[in-house]
Amino acid sequence: MFEGAIQNLIDELGRLPGVGPKSAQRMALYLLAAEPDDVARLVDSIQAVRERVHYCSICGNITEADTCSICRDVTRDPTVICVVEDAKDIQSVENARVFRGRYHVLGGAIDPIHGIGPDQLRIRQLLTRLQDGQVTEIIIATNPNIEGEATASYLARTLSTIGIATSRLAMGLPVGGDLEYADSVTLGRAMEGRRSMT
Amino acid sequence: MFEGAIQNLIDELGRLPGVGPKSAQRMALYLLAAEPDDVARLVDSIQAVRERVHYCSICGNITEADTCSICRDVTRDPTVICVVEDAKDIQSVENARVFRGRYHVLGGAIDPIHGIGPDQLRIRQLLTRLQDGQVTEIIIATNPNIEGEATASYLARTLSTIGIATSRLAMGLPVGGDLEYADSVTLGRAMEGRRSMT
Repeated sequence: MFEGAIQNLIDELGRLPGVGPKSAQRMALYLLAAEPDDVARLVDSIQAVRERVHYCSICGNITEADTCSICRDVTRDPTVICVVEDAKDIQSVENARVFRGRYHVLGGAIDPIHGIGPDQLRIRQLLTRLQDGQVTEIIIATNPNIEGEATASYLARTLSTIGIATSRLAMGLPVGGDLEYADSVTLGRAMEGRRSMT
Repeated sequence: MFEGAIQNLIDELGRLPGVGPKSAQRMALYLLAAEPDDVARLVDSIQAVRERVHYCSICGNITEADTCSICRDVTRDPTVICVVEDAKDIQSVENARVFRGRYHVLGGAIDPIHGIGPDQLRIRQLLTRLQDGQVTEIIIATNPNIEGEATASYLARTLSTIGIATSRLAMGLPVGGDLEYADSVTLGRAMEGRRSMT
């Protein structure tokens, strides 16, 4: 254990997601020894994000304007919405280059243990977006885990009453993976979702 | 890829040691959504470290005073110095509670590929500390890798001309480890350094 200011910094860094005590210590000692300019740039960029960046008023993505670049892009299909848990998931779908519609960020997934129900997510905002009848399809891209599945089921039930086509990303074997190392739940999903080749 | 301020922050966080692009992104999105007080505490603690913390004028450890708490501690044996590469190594040795002498931080290890020779390390300062003849033993606790070994050999050669007892931490099997998983270099060192039980 260090003490004083350096230990304070280690504690604060340790609160960041995915940062354990050892990495926090390494980062703190790096910051102590770094060039003044490097440290100033880090501090400035934290403050710039806090001042300038917020969430898109339509979809909840990250933006420095009122709406995000995807919502403003008129070349993108306004009839399909891909629903994701977090803004970073938009990046993952975009990187795959297989979707040219719009997005909607829920801000998490249903997780009763941590007190997150449908009302804590941006589901009401999604329903509002559907009111003008322009959207005809919803693709649910929540995470393939228990919370993501619960959220997908809830959304599918809610959307079925409105009569909008709703689908969920396929689950199965990861491409480039090895059958030997696939877990049984994934293998079960792959079997269930098998596609005819004839 | 994000853009603007959030991408700047991701880039800056990615410069920290041990932080890859994915963790930098996760940290940046956390900082965007965090409570204002939490962000302020992090920024303040970075600035406090930069203003208040520096290196002990005797041993090179981290301190907020002129000398560190270990150098000021009169109950510690002033005749033995444990030489380490970094200030964080002092914490590791202290945690083992097996050493009650003083320390000397080299500030790295000899690493010609990265342009670090003996002159870039605090070796001259170590020799200066030995001039009054109070120190009778040096324990070299540089890392058990190529650079640490090179540094230990260099120090041992340099110190042999002064006639101070010099030793190196033992290398061998880690306690609680499994022979099956020991790499052959470690096993070789363990064999070489075997101790008589009779």
